[in-house]
Amino acid sequence: MKEQTAINAIRILSADAIQKAKSGHPGLPLGAAPIAYELWAHHMSHNPKNPKWMNRDRFILSAGHGSAMLYSLLHLFGYGELSVEDLKQFRQLDSLTPGHPEYRHTVGVEATTGPLGAGLGMAVGMAMAEKHLAAKFNKENYPVIDHYTYVLCGDGCLMEGISSEVMSLAGTLGLGKLIVLYDSNSITIEGGTDLAFTEDVTKRFEAFGFRTYTVQDGNDIEAVGRAIEKAKEESDKPAFIKITTKIGYGVPAKEGKACAHGEPLGEENVKILRKTLNWPCEEPFKIPDEVYDFYKELASQGEEKETVWNAMMEEYAREYPDLKAELERWFDEDREDNLIEDVDFWKREGKAEATRSISGKALNYIKDKMPNLVGGSADLGPSNKTIMSEAGEFSKETPDGRNIHFGVREIGMTAIANGMLLHGGLKTYTATFFVFVDYMKPMLRLSSLMQIPQIAVLSHDSIGVGEDGPTHEPIEQLAMLRSMPNMYVFRPADEIETKAAWYTAVTSKRTPTCLVVSRQNLPVLAGTSKDALFGGYVLRKEKKSEADLLMFATGSEAGLAVEAAEKLEEQGISARVVSMPCMELFEEQTKEYKESVIPANVKKRVAIEAGCSMPWYKYAGIDGCFVTMDTFGASAPAGQLFEKYGFSVDNVVTTIENYMRNK
Amino acid sequence: MKEQTAINAIRILSADAIQKAKSGHPGLPLGAAPIAYELWAHHMSHNPKNPKWMNRDRFILSAGHGSAMLYSLLHLFGYGELSVEDLKQFRQLDSLTPGHPEYRHTVGVEATTGPLGAGLGMAVGMAMAEKHLAAKFNKENYPVIDHYTYVLCGDGCLMEGISSEVMSLAGTLGLGKLIVLYDSNSITIEGGTDLAFTEDVTKRFEAFGFRTYTVQDGNDIEAVGRAIEKAKEESDKPAFIKITTKIGYGVPAKEGKACAHGEPLGEENVKILRKTLNWPCEEPFKIPDEVYDFYKELASQGEEKETVWNAMMEEYAREYPDLKAELERWFDEDREDNLIEDVDFWKREGKAEATRSISGKALNYIKDKMPNLVGGSADLGPSNKTIMSEAGEFSKETPDGRNIHFGVREIGMTAIANGMLLHGGLKTYTATFFVFVDYMKPMLRLSSLMQIPQIAVLSHDSIGVGEDGPTHEPIEQLAMLRSMPNMYVFRPADEIETKAAWYTAVTSKRTPTCLVVSRQNLPVLAGTSKDALFGGYVLRKEKKSEADLLMFATGSEAGLAVEAAEKLEEQGISARVVSMPCMELFEEQTKEYKESVIPANVKKRVAIEAGCSMPWYKYAGIDGCFVTMDTFGASAPAGQLFEKYGFSVDNVVTTIENYMRNK
Repeated sequence: MKEQTAINAIRILSADAIQKAKSGHPGLPLGAAPIAYELWAHHMSHNPKNPKWMNRDRFILSAGHGSAMLYSLLHLFGYGELSVEDLKQFRQLDSLTPGHPEYRHTVGVEATTGPLGAGLGMAVGMAMAEKHLAAKFNKENYPVIDHYTYVLCGDGCLMEGISSEVMSLAGTLGLGKLIVLYDSNSITIEGGTDLAFTEDVTKRFEAFGFRTYTVQDGNDIEAVGRAIEKAKEESDKPAFIKITTKIGYGVPAKEGKACAHGEPLGEENVKILRKTLNWPCEEPFKIPDEVYDFYKELASQGEEKETVWNAMMEEYAREYPDLKAELERWFDEDREDNLIEDVDFWKREGKAEATRSISGKALNYIKDKMPNLVGGSADLGPSNKTIMSEAGEFSKETPDGRNIHFGVREIGMTAIANGMLLHGGLKTYTATFFVFVDYMKPMLRLSSLMQIPQIAVLSHDSIGVGEDGPTHEPIEQLAMLRSMPNMYVFRPADEIETKAAWYTAVTSKRTPTCLVVSRQNLPVLAGTSKDALFGGYVLRKEKKSEADLLMFATGSEAGLAVEAAEKLEEQGISARVVSMPCMELFEEQTKEYKESVIPANVKKRVAIEAGCSMPWYKYAGIDGCFVTMDTFGASAPAGQLFEKYGFSVDNVVTTIENYMRNK
Repeated sequence: MKEQTAINAIRILSADAIQKAKSGHPGLPLGAAPIAYELWAHHMSHNPKNPKWMNRDRFILSAGHGSAMLYSLLHLFGYGELSVEDLKQFRQLDSLTPGHPEYRHTVGVEATTGPLGAGLGMAVGMAMAEKHLAAKFNKENYPVIDHYTYVLCGDGCLMEGISSEVMSLAGTLGLGKLIVLYDSNSITIEGGTDLAFTEDVTKRFEAFGFRTYTVQDGNDIEAVGRAIEKAKEESDKPAFIKITTKIGYGVPAKEGKACAHGEPLGEENVKILRKTLNWPCEEPFKIPDEVYDFYKELASQGEEKETVWNAMMEEYAREYPDLKAELERWFDEDREDNLIEDVDFWKREGKAEATRSISGKALNYIKDKMPNLVGGSADLGPSNKTIMSEAGEFSKETPDGRNIHFGVREIGMTAIANGMLLHGGLKTYTATFFVFVDYMKPMLRLSSLMQIPQIAVLSHDSIGVGEDGPTHEPIEQLAMLRSMPNMYVFRPADEIETKAAWYTAVTSKRTPTCLVVSRQNLPVLAGTSKDALFGGYVLRKEKKSEADLLMFATGSEAGLAVEAAEKLEEQGISARVVSMPCMELFEEQTKEYKESVIPANVKKRVAIEAGCSMPWYKYAGIDGCFVTMDTFGASAPAGQLFEKYGFSVDNVVTTIENYMRNK
């Protein structure tokens, strides 16, 4: 059988799936099928029988809208028995073939893609993970972690700024086993790339420190193969291969046009496609048996590769039993730790301190317990307090270092850290100033969606920023994060709560965690406890048998609330203070627990937080009282700002007195 | 007097201001002062007596943390009489010299900067505005709009992905009057740039289509001057000048070190600086009179330039009176329009239609009334329905075109549009899928903070996206935008509400507007009216004299709420439906109006919106009922998704019946 038929099978299945769904993106599958085929058939080391093989080559479809091509490949190669029936259910409710590839949903999908450029970032993260793990575990004659990361992207991915952020870092770190395949079809949704994208992309990648290759015709699989082989040659530079393709190849009415991108071809055009490709079967989704046989043969080559690797691993296990065991522990996503009972971890120092400093200490404690924890900041490590001491720096020369210098690249950082988690073997954290979580948001959303326990340390969490002023002062960011599904947003008030935040972060299996910590010192609070792990708890109990008032606060405002409560009590207003470091965890508790903390019958309620009011209506209610901030901040010493915006004991007390009097 | 003294005055004032504040970033002012001096003194066309001179050269300090340098320049050049007292109040409450430069706050500050890279985007926008206005208004011998845009940036700006997005577009559009000055000091907060930023930046800019220049020593102002002159030579390519500087120049203990970046030098080091620079005065903030005289002379040269321009404008006014009048109208930020009484604009077509389509029609109506409206999409114009027909395309060759192809660059697009607004003379809009507003957020925040009426058209506003699945389905984005200070978030339900949204957007003077519109058709609603301009109003009145229930809804859920209300009424539950297309506008109304729409005594309340519940607790209350979505969506035909997630008449009716029964 000619390989051309195998390639065309990808095209036909993709076109049929999209046509049946009456929805999808045929342009990329028709144009890029030969590239994907050549890569998967002859270069990628992968075993469809064991899609989780630790040392497989990784493949990311950064241009996630080309999902039909990926599903066709997975089906033809026999991944997870993804059936023709599944392809027929393309983009249908509860099918294994959703509109964009989804991690944890379809076997063989290494990452959720769709938001353009994200896949490039995750690929860089995977290549970094490979390099780090290789440095840690490989021994002479035992390249136990030794694989390539391939990422296929289009013009859109490369227009997105994230592409520069992550590829610049890939160049600096010398990720020689990262291979970027650029499906260059010169077409975007609004028309030709000449409208907005005339840059010399290859030259940009050269500037980043890549080896670059060009293939003039994406249908020439030999040329594609040669370029991939060259790219695989040992080097300390990542590789970029620009491959010219025709979007919508095989359908004259669509070929090379913007309309090929995101609309089904139409029944008639699918027929024409079959004719152009000389496709032997009229019936939709029908693939000749010989094609399946051919792919089975290809898949078995991958199986052999894993067999060889397994044999090596057996010897490795004999020679380096400890390392082998360690490697397995690292890759076990569900392994348990005993941090909860670790007395040293939970010990209090009992002094006023910024929660970012406490966070830094907690991180440095945890790093010794969890040697596979790596991470860093977007060039704010010293401020975020996220540097792990004596843990080395991840660089081209020292990839075993655990401190990553991401550079001033918040969105790229987050995508990269996601990729490292997806690779397996590592735990990761990221960091920046809290206000700049805005830049991270699109990739944090993917962490939540992919259910990977990313960790973000976000310091300088309020107007406590002070002199840097409103551009650097978060206001609405807590609401932004708390509104995201599947995300723990932890704003701790002191030592024990900060540790609870880190505990939650590093033990979470499916939910990312944001640690929102202060720049300024916060007081020691007598009432805090491990109950912070419940997300919300009684920080100060009312003196009367029943509270007149519930006060809610987090972070730097928890101490303020307690102080105000003491004064109010003197005036006969008995207030309970609820510390609510993590609303999402609180919502996970039983109804009884929640009622024990927030008794429904106490209707007078005050929320105090140096952030916007929106998240607090859920607890304080429409008739609640809000000492919050719904305007931007200002530039001044932090203390003055807290005064100005009402976060002083006097103002809180007066505000509450008025509130209690008014009705 | 030697120019060196004039340069050192900038350094000394900056160091003194930072030292007095005990807060700030001395590294850049010490290193880059000669560059800024040379530019402002000998190349920039600007008149401190009239900082709003229409045809001034624009200068953006993208590295906004170097604000002390900018304030020193503004003071020395005599801008707005920014006094030494103001410099002494650097970073203090209510001073004219906040931590980062703030637009509308300090005369001569062209843009709020601080978030790195943003200034590069705004500079591109200003250069685009210049090019567009020049094409529209210039006549032979009358280059009425003819100025340069300069932007000074550091390593951080260039690490941010936004730098690639906007500079790639600048190259495509041939912005020959954009000049980027790169203060290359090889230092970032975490250490040397070799840690994370070894790329060949100049080569990257060449790839974008820039002319590039290198200055080996930033202290060599003649070399800096020569490079600027070359960059100014007529060309259809923008220019990039890399200038090597020493961060913290003049303070041996800090020079070339990361610690120079963001900490005051310390009293002792400021003394040493004075010695190194041979500065004549010991007293802080003391500047020799001859320095002031020298700057006065320089400033007067700028005044002369405006005088010459004014003379030309007088002749232009005689020869092209209509154009002159038009130009002034365009630059009048506060001019009124009569759109509110425009019967044609408000006319109903009365058919089921997607609000994105209605939005497209409204835009196309407005474009003829507001000829200075320009805008476009991040490569989704045909989907967002944001193409202005017969309005031309902004390209290198046709800069008078009004449709901008931003490419797949959401954050860059938003910064650019901000810059166009800041330039003056234009109104702008941007567009993308609603879910990708996540990428826009950091720059939309600047729109809000700068109080510029940016417009974002955000289509595909819910699970109505359908088959594209969860990566493309907004859930928490409404909460994200609504939590931002100074932002109108408009999610219209039909024709009239969509027009109210556009009306609000184009007439707003100080508040940006997001138009959140549907992909799918929405039904005609009998009850909608211009009252949508109040943000919330009674869409369907209860049949009983008093409502048993208040139902809140927006956009695609408004029709659903009305339908459900009809059924509930049949069952004896009398429901009022409140349409709430824009919560922020509603909050601006009188207490009486709000009570007339939402009577406090009606306690049973339901919120219905295909987005997260958080924003609705404010109206529905703790005991409210929520038909909202706090999980990610899925990939399937839209109708099935609305069913699945409970947005069907049956489910709403049943849910409400249970809710009414339960207590």
